[in-house]
Amino acid sequence: MSKIPYKIYLEEHEIPKYWYNLRADMPNKPAPLLNPGTLQPMTVEELSNVFCSELAKQELDDTTRFIEIPEEIRQFYTMYRPSPLMRAYRLEKALGTPAKIYYKFEGNNTSGSHKLNSAIAQAYYAKQQGLKGVTTETGAGQWGTALSMACSYFDLDCKVIMVKVSYEQKPFRREVMRTYGADVTPSPSMNTQIGQKILAEHPGTSGSLGCAISEAVEVATSTPGYRYVLGSVLNQVLLHQSVIGVEAKTACDKYDIKPDIIIGCAGGGSNLGGLIAPFMGEKLRGEADYRFIAVEPASCPSFTRGKFAYDFCDTGMVCPLAKMYTLGSGFIPSANHAGGLRYHGMTTTLSQLYHDGLMEATAVEQTAVFEAAEQFARTEGILPAPESSHAIRVAIDEALRCKEKGEDKTILFGLTGTGYFDMLAYEKFHNGQMSDYIPTDEDLQAGFAGIPNIRL
Amino acid sequence: MSKIPYKIYLEEHEIPKYWYNLRADMPNKPAPLLNPGTLQPMTVEELSNVFCSELAKQELDDTTRFIEIPEEIRQFYTMYRPSPLMRAYRLEKALGTPAKIYYKFEGNNTSGSHKLNSAIAQAYYAKQQGLKGVTTETGAGQWGTALSMACSYFDLDCKVIMVKVSYEQKPFRREVMRTYGADVTPSPSMNTQIGQKILAEHPGTSGSLGCAISEAVEVATSTPGYRYVLGSVLNQVLLHQSVIGVEAKTACDKYDIKPDIIIGCAGGGSNLGGLIAPFMGEKLRGEADYRFIAVEPASCPSFTRGKFAYDFCDTGMVCPLAKMYTLGSGFIPSANHAGGLRYHGMTTTLSQLYHDGLMEATAVEQTAVFEAAEQFARTEGILPAPESSHAIRVAIDEALRCKEKGEDKTILFGLTGTGYFDMLAYEKFHNGQMSDYIPTDEDLQAGFAGIPNIRL
Repeated sequence: MSKIPYKIYLEEHEIPKYWYNLRADMPNKPAPLLNPGTLQPMTVEELSNVFCSELAKQELDDTTRFIEIPEEIRQFYTMYRPSPLMRAYRLEKALGTPAKIYYKFEGNNTSGSHKLNSAIAQAYYAKQQGLKGVTTETGAGQWGTALSMACSYFDLDCKVIMVKVSYEQKPFRREVMRTYGADVTPSPSMNTQIGQKILAEHPGTSGSLGCAISEAVEVATSTPGYRYVLGSVLNQVLLHQSVIGVEAKTACDKYDIKPDIIIGCAGGGSNLGGLIAPFMGEKLRGEADYRFIAVEPASCPSFTRGKFAYDFCDTGMVCPLAKMYTLGSGFIPSANHAGGLRYHGMTTTLSQLYHDGLMEATAVEQTAVFEAAEQFARTEGILPAPESSHAIRVAIDEALRCKEKGEDKTILFGLTGTGYFDMLAYEKFHNGQMSDYIPTDEDLQAGFAGIPNIRL
Repeated sequence: MSKIPYKIYLEEHEIPKYWYNLRADMPNKPAPLLNPGTLQPMTVEELSNVFCSELAKQELDDTTRFIEIPEEIRQFYTMYRPSPLMRAYRLEKALGTPAKIYYKFEGNNTSGSHKLNSAIAQAYYAKQQGLKGVTTETGAGQWGTALSMACSYFDLDCKVIMVKVSYEQKPFRREVMRTYGADVTPSPSMNTQIGQKILAEHPGTSGSLGCAISEAVEVATSTPGYRYVLGSVLNQVLLHQSVIGVEAKTACDKYDIKPDIIIGCAGGGSNLGGLIAPFMGEKLRGEADYRFIAVEPASCPSFTRGKFAYDFCDTGMVCPLAKMYTLGSGFIPSANHAGGLRYHGMTTTLSQLYHDGLMEATAVEQTAVFEAAEQFARTEGILPAPESSHAIRVAIDEALRCKEKGEDKTILFGLTGTGYFDMLAYEKFHNGQMSDYIPTDEDLQAGFAGIPNIRL
């Protein structure tokens, strides 16, 4: 057996006691959210109409470095945390690379992903506020599953609006959510005004996260005792997901592991933001240096081909405006896109860091992603989610680059989840029916046309 | 945080170095396997026509107490072992029971079950023998997935014959197996002589493990360089699964946990046999006492309503005869039966122990099983496999009995796997479409009629 185990498990008492708020260490703070009506920065009071009050505070707090994790949340975390930091000895051997590859595996729970980290926090604050229930949207279904589990734990109602393409392709996810007592509706639906509008304009659309968000917000704000919760993009979600990075950093420090490159997939940006948070903090404070790489699908290239501008967070344009890398709130990835990571924008924190040159981004095509997924499954044993496999693809590419150059760099990536509910996408891949699609410049221009012209 | 953590993880160097062969400690050994032609005890040479030679030796070895686990297998085990011993604090609280509930969780791997423990051992010995590939049957698909993973690791061909009802209800499993490079066929099929015969006699049958076994054996023995491997029932499989019990015992000893009752679901009996092995060894040697409870489906009640007799292990009557509790090799559970645990017999070791009064057995109906599954999912967070939920049902019942009596007993059960691929069964349960079925005495008599009349 090697000195560093295959799976590094911290003890339960090492579950972090604080979330780390990266914004507090950023010299250039993310731009504030704007009220879509007044174009003034959103206040906690305004946000509290949509979000739980404590979460509204967390959303706007860019100065408190450490925020205590309530004990009830830490108790819930013991179900599946600390999550293991894995050494990919077998993948390294298969690649013949001198690089050392580590991954923080967040899939060892029934939601199958990191989403549970924030779901339990959001459900907790909703319960504290005495709410009856929450609404949300879900894409691949991981977030909806996570929220269902969290709401079941705190005995809250849970209404999940599920992107239609996922609702139809992933009926099993629906049953997992029902096992935890959630109410699940496909989006766009005729139950909301915005759903009716989108269906009138785009009949037969397979939906998008943007549409689903608008519907979930409408349901929350029109139902007494409800608030809206969101599984990515928001500052509060990055804050909660910092538990990934803090644990990863603790494990690295304990075993004297110093990553050179840290890689994560990026849809809305929450897992990546959470994973890199404490490492980026060191970089910002000049204590250490790391390369950070965000990996996005070539079919939804917010960072690599988007614009850095104020834009709507949702298709219905009812949410606050955020300054972010965006493809326009009307952008919907082509129907052949298999996994999640379908969001048109990118969380403000990562957008600012990318804009400031503190982070890199790259886009990969899905056939190459599934090739990496299969290689990973066969060597490491874990069947990865398509989303997570974007990070695997780039980790493998970087490891092969190390092999070419004879460098023994240390690579750390986020393995956000498992692919057990994604077997239809794998089936397409096995049958050679998977296609790649890169949006044309015209496709992108159509999306950009919907970005409002705001200069502050 | 409590003194005993929610999840007890041993270190990787604590992965057992030896399998424990319970038979060596049994005063009444399991009766020998018989050659179906001569009715004489099978020899290693005869078994080696069907099984890998080293596995044939293990099959017949009832004297060697400890068998060393080859280092390459221990290396593979590091992918997912040691598996956690979990304390069900949340379930205890929900039940309001003074009982302490522990479960050994074997689902934290891509096969979603304990099956991988034996799959990797069998693939290893096949590779050592220089074989080209192996054939097997799979019911719920867990064993097939596990074997696919193991064969992929050792670069062996893998042909999986899958019980038709599972093949159709669980298409996603097929894609997991394909991800690991396996070839999957539904059973009964027209590819084998026995499949043709069964289809002629029972047109439209949804299949059974017994049929699938016969087909897999036929393919193995008629294809050069192939051997047959089996995921349960056999002595060798119980031997490999003892890794569960040895780890559980080590963890219990480390934390001074003394189980009063040890519970496991029983289909062919391998997970239960593996879990209880070292504890039963203590009982046999008079060093400690435990209650052991085998839980089987009321629709396939081998222990509780079967006969203790020599019977065929497969529907096709080509395999050796085993003395076991059996419903007859022609018995097929009713089509409404949702999960695995469909096998007509029970491994010889457990059959002998049950016959000798060293173990109890109970049968439960599936609606009650899914009620327990949902309660467990909501409290403990893990979505259990229907098979495992049989053990959960009885663990909950025993814990409630402790509550009634005010006893703080310690209960340990085997949580063999996750239910991510069983959502159709959960859907039926959610929709109130799940029914119970208990075979009538006439149903059982029809099965018993096929048991050969052998007295030794």
